[in-house]
Amino acid sequence: MIVVKLGGAAGIDADAVLADLAGLGEPWLLVHGGNAELDAVSRRLGLEPRFVTSPQGLSSRVTDLETIGAIQMVYRGRLNSELVRRLQALGVNAVGLSGLDGRLWLAERKAAIRYVENGKKFLLRDDYTGRIVSVNAALLKLLLDNGYAPVMTLPALTPEGEAVNVDGDRAAAAVAAATGARALVVLSNVPGLLRDPGDPASIIRRIGRGELEAADGHARGRMKIKLLAASEALAAGVERVILATANTKSPVRDALAGEGTVIA
Amino acid sequence: MIVVKLGGAAGIDADAVLADLAGLGEPWLLVHGGNAELDAVSRRLGLEPRFVTSPQGLSSRVTDLETIGAIQMVYRGRLNSELVRRLQALGVNAVGLSGLDGRLWLAERKAAIRYVENGKKFLLRDDYTGRIVSVNAALLKLLLDNGYAPVMTLPALTPEGEAVNVDGDRAAAAVAAATGARALVVLSNVPGLLRDPGDPASIIRRIGRGELEAADGHARGRMKIKLLAASEALAAGVERVILATANTKSPVRDALAGEGTVIA
Repeated sequence: MIVVKLGGAAGIDADAVLADLAGLGEPWLLVHGGNAELDAVSRRLGLEPRFVTSPQGLSSRVTDLETIGAIQMVYRGRLNSELVRRLQALGVNAVGLSGLDGRLWLAERKAAIRYVENGKKFLLRDDYTGRIVSVNAALLKLLLDNGYAPVMTLPALTPEGEAVNVDGDRAAAAVAAATGARALVVLSNVPGLLRDPGDPASIIRRIGRGELEAADGHARGRMKIKLLAASEALAAGVERVILATANTKSPVRDALAGEGTVIA
Repeated sequence: MIVVKLGGAAGIDADAVLADLAGLGEPWLLVHGGNAELDAVSRRLGLEPRFVTSPQGLSSRVTDLETIGAIQMVYRGRLNSELVRRLQALGVNAVGLSGLDGRLWLAERKAAIRYVENGKKFLLRDDYTGRIVSVNAALLKLLLDNGYAPVMTLPALTPEGEAVNVDGDRAAAAVAAATGARALVVLSNVPGLLRDPGDPASIIRRIGRGELEAADGHARGRMKIKLLAASEALAAGVERVILATANTKSPVRDALAGEGTVIA
């Protein structure tokens, strides 16, 4: 079995990914993001998205309860429904789930988020952000064994019954780890990890387990989190993580055939 | 087993209903609406809700593709997530589903909708509205048998893979019929069918199977559709349909104990 993460950045068309999955001769689980659409809908609703940067240089969304509401509307409501609908049109009996459903993604809420602004360190409290501590693999197996294709997205659930924002790439890594997937395919709007972000030809094609820290030096922005997710998946026993573009005719098959950046 | 429909009109607080369900000594399925929230969010997004009235006097929402998107955001995204989250906080392992998921609610799209305006008859075409023709009872049984509590909402799915708006009360009736529920409890912001809409004391407490047509003479607006849903449920073998208020301390138990309008 494989886990596919479909990114939510602008410029990603899901059609080729879904058609590829519909014809894949192997069970799969799909996890999707939705950052660009969340920004767009939030602005239409009059909520301006805000982000903070951690001391490690990772960006994260400031998530109050209004943002959680917008995440539920956009990720679970609009994007997840649309992926399920398109898969159904392709003959795949998809079932959409957020991390709340069946306690699929159980998370612990972060007490505070450290961030840096103008060189000074601050603490953000009362944020609805968390990290996944367990995945309900039994629910996923139940659905797969009965012919359903689970399509997963944010938010996650705390043991206290709060909805929290979690990182989608790390969520996909947690799903791959919990379900014993042989590979995690992370599809986005870039071809993989590039030495030079402006030059697709500078792609790093293979990264060994021991080379992740060195590779991190080439990563910018979201790519840093993808490498972190990759290291978490590998540490939990997933054999291969492939970072590849969603924008080819057969993005999943191409990635499994070795296109993109293969981390193993 | 019982099926509970929680209405989506303004002035309905789900808390008592959810607490009641969490302690109920019998399996249940929950179907919910969301009309008032859909109107509010649509306006925030700059989409003014529009309605037409059928020759029979039934009101229905004009549903273009933008409205379907809003239904997915509000019903499945916001309201369904929130009910699932609150049930999880009460210790109930809820799983939210729209009619798209696992082909839960398969519908046929209406070719055209007849409506009346200023005494003249018109046809509305290209509307994304349908009627449910089958319910995936096997998926509901699979979830119930494994300890999950399904929470269902709009939209429904056509065989061609389109999302369509369906009436929530009639959807709940279809779920009750397909699952062999012993009762369908329809909770809203009114105590039942009233002879005089302004006087709660004028409630009609019992309606026999043969008295539905006469009772329809007392119904206004949404209540007409609830009676239609009730007749569909009874015709399919559901023993009792109870129309009752959601606004008591134990709305589900009260309804099952005979409060409201009992149709049997």
